[in-house]
Amino acid sequence: MPPPPTAALSSSSSLCLFPLSSYSSPKKTQLGFCPSFPFTRLTNFTPTRRLMTCSAVSIEKETLISHRPHTFLRETDGLDDGSVRSRFQRMIMEVQDSVCGALEAVDGAGKFKEDAWTRPGGGGGISRVLQDGDVFEKAGVNISVVYGVMPPEAYRAAKANVTDQMPGPVPFFAAGISSVLHPKNPFAPTLHFNYRYFETDAPKDAPGAPRQWWFGGGTDLTPSYIFEEDVKHFHSVTKKACDKFDPSFYPRFKKWCDDYFYIKHRDERRGLGGIFFDDLNDYDQEMLLSFATECANSVVPAYVPIVEKRKNTPFTESHKAWQQLRRGRYIEFNLVYDRGTTFGLKTGGRIESILVSLPLTARWEYDHKPEEGSEEWKLLDACMNPKEWM
Amino acid sequence: MPPPPTAALSSSSSLCLFPLSSYSSPKKTQLGFCPSFPFTRLTNFTPTRRLMTCSAVSIEKETLISHRPHTFLRETDGLDDGSVRSRFQRMIMEVQDSVCGALEAVDGAGKFKEDAWTRPGGGGGISRVLQDGDVFEKAGVNISVVYGVMPPEAYRAAKANVTDQMPGPVPFFAAGISSVLHPKNPFAPTLHFNYRYFETDAPKDAPGAPRQWWFGGGTDLTPSYIFEEDVKHFHSVTKKACDKFDPSFYPRFKKWCDDYFYIKHRDERRGLGGIFFDDLNDYDQEMLLSFATECANSVVPAYVPIVEKRKNTPFTESHKAWQQLRRGRYIEFNLVYDRGTTFGLKTGGRIESILVSLPLTARWEYDHKPEEGSEEWKLLDACMNPKEWM
Repeated sequence: MPPPPTAALSSSSSLCLFPLSSYSSPKKTQLGFCPSFPFTRLTNFTPTRRLMTCSAVSIEKETLISHRPHTFLRETDGLDDGSVRSRFQRMIMEVQDSVCGALEAVDGAGKFKEDAWTRPGGGGGISRVLQDGDVFEKAGVNISVVYGVMPPEAYRAAKANVTDQMPGPVPFFAAGISSVLHPKNPFAPTLHFNYRYFETDAPKDAPGAPRQWWFGGGTDLTPSYIFEEDVKHFHSVTKKACDKFDPSFYPRFKKWCDDYFYIKHRDERRGLGGIFFDDLNDYDQEMLLSFATECANSVVPAYVPIVEKRKNTPFTESHKAWQQLRRGRYIEFNLVYDRGTTFGLKTGGRIESILVSLPLTARWEYDHKPEEGSEEWKLLDACMNPKEWM
Repeated sequence: MPPPPTAALSSSSSLCLFPLSSYSSPKKTQLGFCPSFPFTRLTNFTPTRRLMTCSAVSIEKETLISHRPHTFLRETDGLDDGSVRSRFQRMIMEVQDSVCGALEAVDGAGKFKEDAWTRPGGGGGISRVLQDGDVFEKAGVNISVVYGVMPPEAYRAAKANVTDQMPGPVPFFAAGISSVLHPKNPFAPTLHFNYRYFETDAPKDAPGAPRQWWFGGGTDLTPSYIFEEDVKHFHSVTKKACDKFDPSFYPRFKKWCDDYFYIKHRDERRGLGGIFFDDLNDYDQEMLLSFATECANSVVPAYVPIVEKRKNTPFTESHKAWQQLRRGRYIEFNLVYDRGTTFGLKTGGRIESILVSLPLTARWEYDHKPEEGSEEWKLLDACMNPKEWM
């Protein structure tokens, strides 16, 4: 077997697990801890190869374990139950349980299979996958916890008050939940959600330097057919979660979502949006922890009623074929554009966890064009011209 | 509709339509006019953004035409019937005809649908696609001709004897044939081939500077199940074509093929190889034109007998499911690694022609592992550990 591949990452590249670039241009980029990426431990950072523009990152091989542990936090972290990292980890574990429970109830037959792993240097993850159930073709709900090291340049760029002396690599902590749910029925939409928390330690050689932290995430809906009441229900629950915290959140994160899930070469969005945010740190930390928790807890009420309503709707071969074509688009987005996926693939993350986001089956027809005015055309139109649903 | 996207290309990036990097390190890189990329006209080259390392390229929108023209060459080129560009164009047109004819004969029912287009600044292409035939799930055979402009730095780097004065952008010509054939029967292998010719003009402000030219291409086989006699037949015909010209060609280009079609994140090759070469210019130009012609003409005898033999072999659902999983891998390679595909998608090429390389249907199962010693396992093993077939 060849040595584990390393990826050369330019800071202008978007193949980035953590928002290095957002340090130098906060709020202007959408880089960040990426949706649909099951977090992985970053090690062997080599900051010297092309200083300031490029770094090589590779990921420690994971070790499968037979039982999920109570925590993936390092012992020192685990002792402080009140820390944000500890509370965020508890939250994503609880959300993984509640989402999987709700999905098994909707499915009736399918059960989640669980794989848990740790990495030698700390952290780990739990992948849960339900495949070929009665309702779900493939549903993955993953959590992971990462201890890694980030390039000092990123840290310096963020904080003007850091001394001019170059600090060493900056240790970081990240945790998140990431999920993609593909139902069988072409009238039941695909759902993706991902919530993540990121924290740096002070560099070892600059112990007084400030810590950084931020939140990222989002929930978005990808139907093959539009039922306006479904899309409105989804956006309405999502908006309510946002509105509890800040009235600017929903419009801002709705647009961010439309912009992020853009399949450039098709001039289409992957689906009908939802919310997406990244690098969020200019609010009270407790408030943002509550916000992320609220969003994650809104997944079940935003999504499950729609699947319940559509899971038994009769459909034809032609409806199924259209769903399969849209699944092809989902794959195009994830493999070509999604930063978490592309970064994960190129740096040696746990491939099966990363690619669980891909549907079980998909289809590519040459030059397929839905008839103008058809239901298929309406979906395509809404993907090309994002609408306001509220 | 947003303005056509532009792609920032670093010279260390591999998303490159033409072998800029090979100029500075000839024979060391595998960059080049890329397999499975239907050539597209490059315009709007902006050489100033990151001099020597980066250039922005976008592609003129194509115009569909109702009848294929006799030639895509500019009038001035077209007058010289003996030029290499003119003879290469004739060759790929003839190969497109003969391959499509042979495939229709094998299929019995399916017919190729033809789309032809030109671009305002010259050049154009013909896509031919046979979809959902009796034997072929999807078969695309594309040719195209490109007139474009390349960064002056690349030209200078290649020729030490160019004056120190910086020349302007260098016009180039490129032509090629590119094809992917996916049969339905899981025992009949997928085939890909691509042959291309590239030529620069002297820079306008350095009329005495030498022209550059090179050839690239290859043919490779991707079965879901190994029939040793089939793989040996394929490699033997391909080797014979090589041996007519140089005994070093087959071993060198066989290894190059195994190296190029590597799915890093799986540590697997896409298939069982064949030949692949690029930037080939250190032989007599007439010899290489004959070599490319011989290789292209070998596609039918190398491949068609295998499909004839396997097209009616009985198979089970489980054989089909394994084929679908391998198709998933094909898609992973093409969307994540193939330089032509990724470059084409990001710069606005004709999407339907680029993505005709993707199979009609594919499948991704979570954590699928074939049983050790099974036929599926043997295929996987051969993809992970390339074998000598001759």
